[in-house]
Amino acid sequence: MFQDFSQTARPEQGPPRLAALRREMEAEGLAGFLVPRADAYQGEYVAPHDDRLAWLTGFTGSAGYCVALQAKAGVFVDSRYRVQVKTQVADVYTPVDWPEVGLAEWIADNLPEGGDLGFDPWLFSLDQIRRLEDALDGVTLHRCDNLVDRIWDDQPEAPAGAVAAQPLDLAGEAHEAKIDRLAKGLEAAACIITLPDSIAWLLNIRGTDIPRNPVPHGFALLNRDGTVELFMDAAKLEGLGDHLGDKVKVLPPEGFIAAVATLGGRVQLDPATCPVVVAEAITGEIIECADPCLLPKARKNAAELEGARAAHLRDGAAMVRFLAWVDAQAPGSFTEIDAVKALEGFRTATNALRDISFETISGSGPNGAIVHYRVTEDTDRTAQDGELLLVDSGGQYVDGTTDITRTIAIGTPGDEEQEAFTRVLKGMIGLSRLRFPKGLAGRDIDVLARAALWDVGWDYGHGTGHGVGSYLSVHEGPARIARSGTIAFEPGMILSNEPGFYREGSYGIRIENLIAVEEAPELNGQVVPRMLRFETLTWVPIDRRLIRKELLTEPERDWLDSYHAGVLERIGPLVEGNEAEWLKRACAPL
Amino acid sequence: MFQDFSQTARPEQGPPRLAALRREMEAEGLAGFLVPRADAYQGEYVAPHDDRLAWLTGFTGSAGYCVALQAKAGVFVDSRYRVQVKTQVADVYTPVDWPEVGLAEWIADNLPEGGDLGFDPWLFSLDQIRRLEDALDGVTLHRCDNLVDRIWDDQPEAPAGAVAAQPLDLAGEAHEAKIDRLAKGLEAAACIITLPDSIAWLLNIRGTDIPRNPVPHGFALLNRDGTVELFMDAAKLEGLGDHLGDKVKVLPPEGFIAAVATLGGRVQLDPATCPVVVAEAITGEIIECADPCLLPKARKNAAELEGARAAHLRDGAAMVRFLAWVDAQAPGSFTEIDAVKALEGFRTATNALRDISFETISGSGPNGAIVHYRVTEDTDRTAQDGELLLVDSGGQYVDGTTDITRTIAIGTPGDEEQEAFTRVLKGMIGLSRLRFPKGLAGRDIDVLARAALWDVGWDYGHGTGHGVGSYLSVHEGPARIARSGTIAFEPGMILSNEPGFYREGSYGIRIENLIAVEEAPELNGQVVPRMLRFETLTWVPIDRRLIRKELLTEPERDWLDSYHAGVLERIGPLVEGNEAEWLKRACAPL
Repeated sequence: MFQDFSQTARPEQGPPRLAALRREMEAEGLAGFLVPRADAYQGEYVAPHDDRLAWLTGFTGSAGYCVALQAKAGVFVDSRYRVQVKTQVADVYTPVDWPEVGLAEWIADNLPEGGDLGFDPWLFSLDQIRRLEDALDGVTLHRCDNLVDRIWDDQPEAPAGAVAAQPLDLAGEAHEAKIDRLAKGLEAAACIITLPDSIAWLLNIRGTDIPRNPVPHGFALLNRDGTVELFMDAAKLEGLGDHLGDKVKVLPPEGFIAAVATLGGRVQLDPATCPVVVAEAITGEIIECADPCLLPKARKNAAELEGARAAHLRDGAAMVRFLAWVDAQAPGSFTEIDAVKALEGFRTATNALRDISFETISGSGPNGAIVHYRVTEDTDRTAQDGELLLVDSGGQYVDGTTDITRTIAIGTPGDEEQEAFTRVLKGMIGLSRLRFPKGLAGRDIDVLARAALWDVGWDYGHGTGHGVGSYLSVHEGPARIARSGTIAFEPGMILSNEPGFYREGSYGIRIENLIAVEEAPELNGQVVPRMLRFETLTWVPIDRRLIRKELLTEPERDWLDSYHAGVLERIGPLVEGNEAEWLKRACAPL
Repeated sequence: MFQDFSQTARPEQGPPRLAALRREMEAEGLAGFLVPRADAYQGEYVAPHDDRLAWLTGFTGSAGYCVALQAKAGVFVDSRYRVQVKTQVADVYTPVDWPEVGLAEWIADNLPEGGDLGFDPWLFSLDQIRRLEDALDGVTLHRCDNLVDRIWDDQPEAPAGAVAAQPLDLAGEAHEAKIDRLAKGLEAAACIITLPDSIAWLLNIRGTDIPRNPVPHGFALLNRDGTVELFMDAAKLEGLGDHLGDKVKVLPPEGFIAAVATLGGRVQLDPATCPVVVAEAITGEIIECADPCLLPKARKNAAELEGARAAHLRDGAAMVRFLAWVDAQAPGSFTEIDAVKALEGFRTATNALRDISFETISGSGPNGAIVHYRVTEDTDRTAQDGELLLVDSGGQYVDGTTDITRTIAIGTPGDEEQEAFTRVLKGMIGLSRLRFPKGLAGRDIDVLARAALWDVGWDYGHGTGHGVGSYLSVHEGPARIARSGTIAFEPGMILSNEPGFYREGSYGIRIENLIAVEEAPELNGQVVPRMLRFETLTWVPIDRRLIRKELLTEPERDWLDSYHAGVLERIGPLVEGNEAEWLKRACAPL
């Protein structure tokens, strides 16, 4: 079982740890110390070794900061975690609504006399520190040792997970070819790469350093001559054999800063993710531009797309077995945790599951309205007749990463729930069946997922879609479907399509498929030179009991019927007996 | 009659004028000279005095440049004018596809040896010259006298049109109040305002210096102390009486540069429109920001909106009389020019028409596919049975500016024309009936006007909507509905909603209403805090003979029927006899 349901926060441990940190601050002459959730790799998941924010404060969310001053300690959390933080941190911590209140603003209010603020320069990107330094007034940022590590006696070791090669038939391009291609396009003599999924993609390797994301921790230098220096613990690479080859030189991670400092000529880095300590070690000219792996990694090649399709069929069959299981339970007879366990069981039974791609969100009734709900023994509840169960989950398979949300009627759904579900579905279909000219970005099409909700004054507070990796991170840049999405879509990009609606205290609805950008075949009489469309990757029934048919247009009904026919055709052969019967019923035309 | 139909270009006059210009260039030691279409005010219409590009080259389009070198002279025109330019300029001129080919790129290709390039610094904005200087390599820009003016013996005088006060009941806010409000928000001690419609809005004055746009030429300094210096020919202001009051000091335009040069402290200007000669005269610190009139001018107040509604009813009745007239003509019995004359006649008969808001576009059959078609005696043709007639027109009334496009079936329309019209209409309705959260901009909603066309591979090559002034410019910034529209909508903004489709060589379709942004009343169960929607200002029937009913959704059909009921209710009382009968038929439910 990958997922666990323990309530990990121990608020009572916060006060003594904060007191110890304050003593260290005083010894260093610091007025404050910054503790981010992030590690040096700026990913979504951190190893236990790097889980400093949770260890110090008790807050276990996936983003945030603590600003510890002598008199006050702010815990900055975004809208997803406003409720959760209150139960997780002791009174010595003050929750702050972030980013509505910025760090600099709060510091100015709570440290009016000014002073030195310490931070670990491995844990902040160049951009973050620049923005903070610009915004601070009378307060000086002070690069220093990590004071949390100093007081954390039983801090777990940094991870040393084994690294494996990603087979060429799944990666679709040899890492030597990727290196050559990217090296030719460099703006400088060398390029610093610090994002683990960039390194994993570039070198066709996968790791086990952190949960959910199959990436190894490490840093790399990509040189214009087509060589790579990989700063990674050699012990982690033992299973690789000669996969890396001559062009990749493995060096101890401890030597990374010294190597950066001796680079001659121009050095390229991504200020959004490069740790400030690395950027400041450079002695030559710095060229700032986006990590050169981001776009090539997002544009999946034919082999990666083939893998994604296979992973989605396998995962789809597990989801169908799960949905049939849910329908076989009497309302009120199973809990959210039961659902998570059942679903993980069906995925595990595929014998191909490497990990879940994130903690399954299983929210019944009012818990469904908590967008990033993680069920624990304390919050677990039973879905009653008339409630909705929202299940957002995914699997990491060697050929692809999945991410799917289905909202399920438990018993007989209410009228508002049906209307809301249908309006969410209209948005999801609007994107699924869109043809559009090349050059558009997420911002240009996001409205299609929302207009049917806006009609009645509804909306959802999250983006409509994020990029998804190929057996990599389930949240992958740079394209997204959202008001903030300005990267143009390109063939091969895999994105989620997941509009929703949440009635606080009552229910939550989200419908999510993964889609891949593809060239749209030319139509008779077409005048737009090149058009794109989305190939649907996810094939799992959408709960017809929640649809108000008269709210759908004819093209929307046609899309849904044809989608369900496609589900039956693809997943039907993969399930048997009662599950096959259930699938047939679930895929009947509207 | 405001519009004329003469073919004004005289290509044979180009060569001797170019030869004369080249002699002046040689005398000044210049390798080339830049002639823009623009005047010092960067508006869409120029006075005959400023029509240098047309005088020199013969090209009469509303945007473009001539780059005259000794061996070659490029005439830079955008996609609207690629066909027209060929008939308007002699062989000594080389048409250049702009902006696909930039000025700097073409200059580099045609002046490889480098040299000095002269230009009149009144006719280029600070931004334009910066961009050009950045892009040029080995070529130096040289500020100099206008060499075209030197060789233009019978150049018309600069305009000296009379200025009138805009009545307070129509302007809705006294100019003293506007001045105070804007002065308080200045970023500097003084602000340079060079856009004529900004000055006209700020001072509640209207002018007659140029056709179509009721603005006077002049410049202004808005000071933080709440005073304005207006650099404008006093003779033009004689009819104003004491309208301007004590806070506005009128000074001769010749003194503007000297006044700018003596400004103490920080000076604010808009680099997008401020002539480079003005910016370079400043001796103090320059603060660059958008013209402070742009947003307040775009947010129409209650009186301006009331005026717009009244102007649209009056103009709508004239349009209805025109459409009834068209339907009464036998196919093949009237020309495009006949249509323009008839329409202008109906508008003139309102006794309130001050000017047309732009040259009426009256394009039948293939001419309808020329997006900015202006009919002349040479191009005039008769709409035949089965063709479409596209008429895009507007009126300048003292209470409002109108802009409307209707596409009319002449005889029996073809299948493709009906499908295209219906898809264009779907887009136009999609925006008309949208409710959306505050904070969105044109880019966020533009897709709604296009998705039904994209479905079948179609699109249109222009924006979906532009801002419209209050008895001011028919093309007004800063908000627009287009991929380039990033200014958030605010209540009171008036915009056009004009999707289209054009089949080259065959037909053109455009349907255009003006709409005003307004607060949307809160709905039961609404969760979005504040929503906006569009109030429709234009009330004129949409040709039901061109609609394929089965392509419309039920909400779209409802919108159209309710729109036509609204037209009948509002315009019915304003027309009589046959025209009233026609209107009743045109407004019948689908």
